[in-house]
Formats: sequence, C-alpha cells, structure tokens
Amino acid sequence: MTSTSASSDTPAISRNPLPASRKVYLAHSERADIRVPVREVALSDGRAVTLYDTSGPYTDTAADIDVSRGLPTDARRQWLDDRGDSAFGEAPAKPPADRLRASLQRRPRRALPGRNVSQLHYARKGVVTAEMEYIALRENQAREQLADAALPAITAEFVREEVARGRAIIPANINHPELEPMIIGRNFLVKINANIGNSALGSSIEEETEKLVWATRWGADTVMDLSTGKHIHATRDAIIRNSPVPIGTVPLYQALEKVDGIAEDLSWEVFRDTLVEQAEQGVDYFTIHAGLRLAHVPLTVDRVTGIVSRGGSIMAKWCIAHHRENFLYTHFEDICEILKRYDVSFSLGDGLRPGSIADANDAAQFAELETLGELTRIAWKHDVQVMIEGPGHVPMHLIEENMTRQLACCDEAPFYTLGPLTTDIAPGYDHITSGIGAAMIGWYGCAMLCYVTPKEHLGLPNRQDVKDGIIAYKIAAHAADVAKGHPGARYRDDLLSQARFDFRWEDQFNLSLDPETARAYHDETLPKDSAKVAHFCSMCGPKFCSMKISQDVRDYSATEQARQDGMREKSREFRQNGAEIYVHPVD
Amino acid sequence: MTSTSASSDTPAISRNPLPASRKVYLAHSERADIRVPVREVALSDGRAVTLYDTSGPYTDTAADIDVSRGLPTDARRQWLDDRGDSAFGEAPAKPPADRLRASLQRRPRRALPGRNVSQLHYARKGVVTAEMEYIALRENQAREQLADAALPAITAEFVREEVARGRAIIPANINHPELEPMIIGRNFLVKINANIGNSALGSSIEEETEKLVWATRWGADTVMDLSTGKHIHATRDAIIRNSPVPIGTVPLYQALEKVDGIAEDLSWEVFRDTLVEQAEQGVDYFTIHAGLRLAHVPLTVDRVTGIVSRGGSIMAKWCIAHHRENFLYTHFEDICEILKRYDVSFSLGDGLRPGSIADANDAAQFAELETLGELTRIAWKHDVQVMIEGPGHVPMHLIEENMTRQLACCDEAPFYTLGPLTTDIAPGYDHITSGIGAAMIGWYGCAMLCYVTPKEHLGLPNRQDVKDGIIAYKIAAHAADVAKGHPGARYRDDLLSQARFDFRWEDQFNLSLDPETARAYHDETLPKDSAKVAHFCSMCGPKFCSMKISQDVRDYSATEQARQDGMREKSREFRQNGAEIYVHPVD
Repeated sequence: MTSTSASSDTPAISRNPLPASRKVYLAHSERADIRVPVREVALSDGRAVTLYDTSGPYTDTAADIDVSRGLPTDARRQWLDDRGDSAFGEAPAKPPADRLRASLQRRPRRALPGRNVSQLHYARKGVVTAEMEYIALRENQAREQLADAALPAITAEFVREEVARGRAIIPANINHPELEPMIIGRNFLVKINANIGNSALGSSIEEETEKLVWATRWGADTVMDLSTGKHIHATRDAIIRNSPVPIGTVPLYQALEKVDGIAEDLSWEVFRDTLVEQAEQGVDYFTIHAGLRLAHVPLTVDRVTGIVSRGGSIMAKWCIAHHRENFLYTHFEDICEILKRYDVSFSLGDGLRPGSIADANDAAQFAELETLGELTRIAWKHDVQVMIEGPGHVPMHLIEENMTRQLACCDEAPFYTLGPLTTDIAPGYDHITSGIGAAMIGWYGCAMLCYVTPKEHLGLPNRQDVKDGIIAYKIAAHAADVAKGHPGARYRDDLLSQARFDFRWEDQFNLSLDPETARAYHDETLPKDSAKVAHFCSMCGPKFCSMKISQDVRDYSATEQARQDGMREKSREFRQNGAEIYVHPVD
Repeated sequence: MTSTSASSDTPAISRNPLPASRKVYLAHSERADIRVPVREVALSDGRAVTLYDTSGPYTDTAADIDVSRGLPTDARRQWLDDRGDSAFGEAPAKPPADRLRASLQRRPRRALPGRNVSQLHYARKGVVTAEMEYIALRENQAREQLADAALPAITAEFVREEVARGRAIIPANINHPELEPMIIGRNFLVKINANIGNSALGSSIEEETEKLVWATRWGADTVMDLSTGKHIHATRDAIIRNSPVPIGTVPLYQALEKVDGIAEDLSWEVFRDTLVEQAEQGVDYFTIHAGLRLAHVPLTVDRVTGIVSRGGSIMAKWCIAHHRENFLYTHFEDICEILKRYDVSFSLGDGLRPGSIADANDAAQFAELETLGELTRIAWKHDVQVMIEGPGHVPMHLIEENMTRQLACCDEAPFYTLGPLTTDIAPGYDHITSGIGAAMIGWYGCAMLCYVTPKEHLGLPNRQDVKDGIIAYKIAAHAADVAKGHPGARYRDDLLSQARFDFRWEDQFNLSLDPETARAYHDETLPKDSAKVAHFCSMCGPKFCSMKISQDVRDYSATEQARQDGMREKSREFRQNGAEIYVHPVD
C-alpha cells in the first residue's frame, strides 16, 4: 500500500456536486438526529434516484466548510454524550511541530474507568446504537427505491447481530465524531479503501484535505493515512478533523520515525505511546502486525519476493535482531486495553502476505493467518472490533482458498484484502491485475478491498492515479455486490442499461461511476449536443444501430403477436418440438 | 465490437522493437522451413529469455517491408503448393473503387474440385500439417526455457488431435500465406482479438496497416476488420496482405453495404457472393449469425436492452420483415461448401448475446446457443473449422454457466467471448469491467477473448484506447493461463518478480506487458538513471524498504540457521506443538 505523491498539483477543495446530482438526506422514521446523506441523480424523464454516497458534506452546496476548523460534529457528538460512558480529558503536551494547527486540535475523549466504549461491546449487550440505526438506513437505501418487496430489508437489529457476532465492524473512534458511520462485513455492501499520505514538508491543510476529499468524492469508503516524516501528527489532525469516512493508520510507521527509522530500536513503550497519541486524535482503525511471529520468519527464506509488507519486514527485522518474539504479539492484550478505551478497531496486518504469484498461499502466509485467528479471539474477549488483512499477489485459482481459510481461521471476522493481483507481469496496470482478483474475492465474501493504483511497484500515485485506482475498485466492489445478490445492487445497472437502450445519453453519463469521463469519451466522436438525444451513436451510425433495430423488432413483435395469436406461442411450440431438426424451407 | 476511430492520428508503420528486445526464430528439429518468431529480451544479468510474439516481421530490424506490396509469403506458400490440393484461378473483375491497389491484389487460390483444404480435414485424416508443426513449437516456447522436465510438451501430434477433435481451430485461409500460424483452443494459450476498422474515405495503405501493426505489436493474436463504406474491399486487401495474424470479418456488414444498408433487401445471393469475395482475399474466419432463428426473436421482446449485436439485429429485422427463417440458417450447408474450399473458419455469431446484466443467461441467449451447437455439428460434417462467439454482459456468478453450457451444446468447440462485462455502471472503463469477466471465463476454458476498449458504448477507440484494451486483455489472458496451469505460463511472472526483488529495474520494465509505460511511471518519481540500479524505490525510500529488509532477513536467517541447527527446524517444532497457546515470554 503506497502513499500519494508529493508532486501531485493539488487545487482547492473539490466542492462541486457530480453532474445532475444533489445531496439529500434519508430521514429515520423515529429519530430526527439520524439523517443519512445520499446522492440524488435527476434523470431526464423526471425521475430522481439516489445512490450510496461517501463524499460527505463537501458535495452539499448548503454546507459551510472551513477545513482549518474541521467538519461539524453535532449529531454524533450528542450520541456519544448520551451514552455517558466517556469523558473529555486534557491533551498531552505536543511537540512544537504539532502545535502549528491548534484550530484542529481537540481535547481527547476517553472511556470512563472500567468502561468499554466499543460498538462490539454494546452490540453484545443487545444495545442498538445510533450508529447502527444510521448504517441500517444507509445500507438499505437502494432497496428503498425498489417496489420488489421480496428483497430483505437491512434492519438495525440485523446490523447489531452482525457486529455482535464479529462478522462486521463499525470503525468509529469516539474521537472522530465527524464521521458518517459505515459498516464493513460480508453481509453488507463491499467497501473499498484508498491510501493517501502527506505531501512535501509544510504542505497546506487544504492540500492534505483535498487528497481525502478527492478519494471520497470518487467512492473511497475508508481512507488510510500512510503519512511519514516530520509533520505526521499535524497532518493527521488535518485529515481526521475533515474526514467523513473512517481513517486507518499503521502506527508502526510513526513509531519507527520516533526511533529514527532503526527497526532494532523499536520498543513496546514507544509503540504504546504512539497508539495512545493516534487513538486520541481519532484514528478509527490500526493496522497492527502482531501475527508475524519469530518462528514464521524462516518460512520466508526461500520465497521469490521475501517479505513485501513494510510493517512486516520491520517487525521481522526486530524479531531477528533481538531473537525475541514480536512485541506486538506478546503485548497484544495490552493493545486491546488501549483500543477498547476509544473504540479503535483492529486491522490485523498480514506482514507475510505474498508479494508474487510464486509465493501465494505458502506456509509463511498461512502460518501467520492462523496466528491472526488466535489474536481475533483474544480481541473479541476484550470486545474490541477486528478485521483481517489479506494478500497481495494470488493467481485466480488460489483466491478462493484465501477466503475460505480466513473465514475458518478467524471465525468469520471481516476480511480486508489488497487486490489480490492475479499476475505479476503488468506493472503500470496493477489496478487492473488486482481489480480482477478484488472482484473475485469480494464475490467470495471479502468485506473490504484496499485499492491498488496504476503506480503500484513503480512510484507514488498522483491525483489521476488515485482516481483510476478508486474507479477500478468501485467496479470490483459493485461487480461483487451484484454477484452476491446484495439487495438492490443491480438496480443501478438496470437504470443505466435502460437509459442506454432508450438513448438517454445524459442519464447514461450521470448514472455512471465517472460521469465526466463517460461524457468526454462520447464527445470525442460526437461532440454536438444534438448527438446526446440522437437515437444512435458513433459506433454504428443511424443505419446500423442495433438498439434502434431492436426497438423496431419489439414494436413489430407486439403487433405481430396481437395479430396472429402470438409469435411467443409459436416459438414455444417450435422449441417443444425440439429445434434440433435441420430443415430447408422452400425459399 | 466497435471499429477504430477515423480521427486517430496515425504515424508511419511502427517498426522499432520493444526495449532490450530483438526478434529471434525458433528452429524446428527436422524442418528448416519452419521458423517460429519470438521476442528475445536481454536481461541485465546476461541471460536472454524469449516471449511469445504476435508482432510479426515488423519488429524484425532485418525485415525489408513495403506495405504497398504486402508481406513475404515464401514459407507458407510452399506448404500450400506441396499439399497439391489447390490451384490459382483468375480473380473476378473488380469494381473501380477496388482497382486502386493492384499491387496488393492476388490471384485467388481455390481447392481443386472435390477437395477439402481445411486443417480439420487433414487432422482427421491423421496428417500433421506444417502449420501444426509450427504451432507446436510456438505454443511450447516458454517451456523450452524451463529446466522442469515435469512440464508436458505440446507436440505436433497433440495439436493435430485437438484440431481433429474440433476442440481447437487453426484459422488459416489458403489465400492468406502471409500469416504466422496460431491456434485457438482451450488446451493452448488463451488468445485475444482486437477489432479495427477503416478510416475516413481514401485513407492511406500505411494508415490502415498501422492500425493492424499497432494491435499486433501489443499482443493481438487475431484482428477483426470491421470496416464499412466505399473502400471496404481495398482496405481489406491492405490489411490481409500485411497481416502476420489471422484476420476475421463479419461479411454481413459488406453485404448490407451492397443493398444500401436496407436489411430487408438482403438475400442469400448477395451474401454468398460476399463470402466468396472475402474468402478469395484471404479472410481467415467469418462471423456468421446463422444461429439467430425467426422463432428466437420474440424471446428478446421483454429484454432490458433487446438485441445489441449489430449482425443479430440486422438478421432479426430481415426475419421479421419477411416472416421467414434466417437465410444464413437455411443456407448453412451452402456456406460450409464455400468455406471448405478456402479453409475459412466459422466464428458462429451470438446475435442474441445479452447487452446488459439484466439480460444475461436468458432464454433468447441459450436458445441461440443450442442452435449454434446444431450448426457446429453440421460444419464438422463438412470438415469446416468452428469456434463459437459468446457474451457480452454477464455478472460474475453467471459466467461459469456460460462456459459449461457452451462446452455441452457445442461439443467443446472453442469459445470466443466479448468480455463479458461484469457490471453496466462504468462506461469509460469497460476494458476493466470486461477484463474481470474475460479473465474468469478464460480460466473456465474460454479459448479466445475479444477485447473491449475504454470507449465501448461511447465512441470509436483511438490508438491509445486500442492499446489500453489490448493490455487489459493480455492481462486477462495471462492470468487465465496461470490459473489453468498452462506449462510455462508462470515463467514470465517469476522472472519479473525475481527482477523486482533484486531491484533490477530495467529487467522489471523490459519483462512487463508495456515496458514504456512502466518505465515512464517509475521515472515520474525517480527520474535519475542511478535510481534504476538503486536498491530501493520511491514508495518507501531507502530507510523503509521491505525488499531490502527481506534481504537482510534472508542473510541473517542463513547464518543463524547454520549457527544454531536451523530456525526452520525450530519453527517446524513450534508449529507441531500447535502454535495455538498464547504465551507471554518474559521481556
């Protein structure tokens, strides 16, 4: 997972809604404080349809946003107050570099002594939280528009059950009240994550925030901040305070900064302090490489690409240098104690994921997976939410085994995979090599897909690369939702295909994942506005248009049918009498 | 399937070899006249590896090529002469528009009276043709470089058996001696097709040829010429005379031109004459929409997107206008009689393929597929080679049924699918939505994948779109070969991953599907040449480099192992004693 490029020229915050779209809010039947934002698309025939929307208040023209102060927090802040299980404390003294952005610093909220504030804790007590009500409404929105009563509704109680069972997580740090709650689990819409990172030293709050806004604009459900370097803390303030989506981090990166990048110098104490620091800023999930054990390291010796996970290689080096067990493993319960105080979710890192087709599904990978299962059960003992990170590079025929083993080893905790890439031979196109694997594993039950950009293995992604990676992963996630038969998932495909058949070009553009690109491609060949209502397109022209001919066929059959007792009947007969026989009617 | 844009600015013929590559020829152990071209890549460590190469003589710096005269034909022309089953006849008088390019016109070769010149005919007689010897060497080339004797060799006899069985075809018109023989079948490498079409009226031979050269340069195994308009015949001369790969067409398009685009005016006579005209030019396979029967048409009435195949909609309109059975169906044996005289292969068109997720795997699609099976058996009765075209738009969970039904209905004749697209919601990115489906169906046994470009549904692809579509499909085809375990397929992945682990950047670029793009992306972040030998990359920098740390780990473990009786052993013990127990070693 790479962070984004310093060189990307970043404009001001993107605020304009997508074409023909406006932000509307779904109302909860009983609670006025639960309003779920969706994107409403106006169709040319007067209908309006709503789509799941990750872009937050930025695409709400009515929203007054000042990124130097952060997003409003009213609704969720009230929910947290109402639960009465936490209180505000004093922020620890900050180093000079971090004091730059006082306007974005908050007093940390902490669980009251002896209390556990996690969604999992409440779910197991049978409590349906406001976040669960919100999520039920949000996951349900497509279905709401469908007449089809056969589709099962996603209820708040179902959300609670899935969380209680550990089969889904709601990453929602009590110090991140700005977020719009979402859920990660295989019985919900497949989610995607995009990685961003800090820019050159002293980049502006706007610049850092815009990367986040850009990613959520195109559909990132969560964002991982993989920033490194001097302003790492202040950068995270800018991102979290302005983020409507859950933020994940790899605390090990900051801990390593604190020991000047020397893996051997890492210690539990440095790591512990980093966890607390980030938890109190509001990070929603931590990638923790606790599953990589000293005994696993030799299993990687004969690999083609060794250890490719940055965190994994750092911990492997530490283990070997000290010839001691991974301190993240030995201190795992201590880590649980910290996470439960803020409701930070675990994303258990796969430090030994394969980095090449040759290393897929090997002993090292699966040995670590077993340990991740062991750690999952420990986290659950503490009512701490858990998801499991997965590969990586895996050929198609070995993908399903990854999913089935993960479900078995980790008692169905949500799986969160990077791709997987299905071949190693296409650097420059790994959003595609991995989009194939991501779609497949999403169908098999993977809950969240971590995007890969075209720059993977080559360099740092710029704005366009981030967008290309996200679109490829929205395709994979949606293809998986359709294949899984998620209620209402196919609704958008049908709307777009109906628009295509009716030559409603504007609707075809506006319903697509990337309306701007769809329109631009169309206009390259047929720029004139008249072409957007024309009953043909540039591929075949008016004479050859199959859609147009289809319409003729449809009209013809209709009359024909009325006239002569139904061609349908004829065709049924014909096929009943076994269409096998090859006959030469007299011409 | 769309044709390429008129507006694409086309340069002179692309002749430069890919970076660090040169054309070499694999020699046949017994026959000097059989030389299979491959691309040899020079690695930085002194090794040279060869890759399957579709680019023909254009990337051979020693080749003297004049596109106004066409490619040399010596080798295959001799094979055809040696078989003594055909003779040259007089070319029929050409209309003025077609006389423009006399230098590209040839006297047509025809089967001697009563003779059948098809590869299938010879295969069934137990004859291994020169083309089969050539193909065995070509399909085998990756394995040749592998020490692993366990990998089965692909013998010429095996090629013959697969062709005789109808499970593979060798599209090779006796009037296309310029081609480098290749095979399409599920027990061979998965192939891809790219579509091109003619440019604006009077475009040059160079311009038309360059589209072909561009497509084969990036890996198109066959090319379909979907040209329409006035210069359709002359354009086809330019393409076939200069093509090292098999050329496919949809004769119906030209037939329709002959009746001024009025479907109702089509007749068997016009179509028959078009078949002969194109067969004598050297077209290697024809898309024939003979499976769409009058009785099937009403089955499409309630579809979301009706009939989306251009040929299919044309024939549906004809059937309904005359209320008569499809003349391509009623005259199918007559068509076989023509094709066997030139060894043109059938590509039985799926005129009723679904054009949306909603229409996938419906009654209309499968009714036509049954008919295609019936026609396959008729073609085989005539020893005419057959492959079957398939969808289209299919969600992931319905893809496998397409493959299993096709194998069952069509007695394992090769399947040739367009994608399928796994969702309808991403116009502008359909090379990705369909690349997912293509990779999966390739793994399930599809023999050839027809590419889809980013412009699908929107406009005519330009040069970049054609390249993007081809690379996406090379990824899909290769991912399928790896998943199927084709002998030697993974060889290239391993070479590239080894180069990646060793930080041999140049090798990583040169072994990739698109060396130019891989290098350009790398250079965006680390342009300096020194960076290409640096033992780190821009993603993590020298301090965090996981590959570098992996190397340390590897070195350490090696000594460690020697020193203390093997960590491997320890790890084995550890896992034998069930890594389950969670222990707190004293820190």
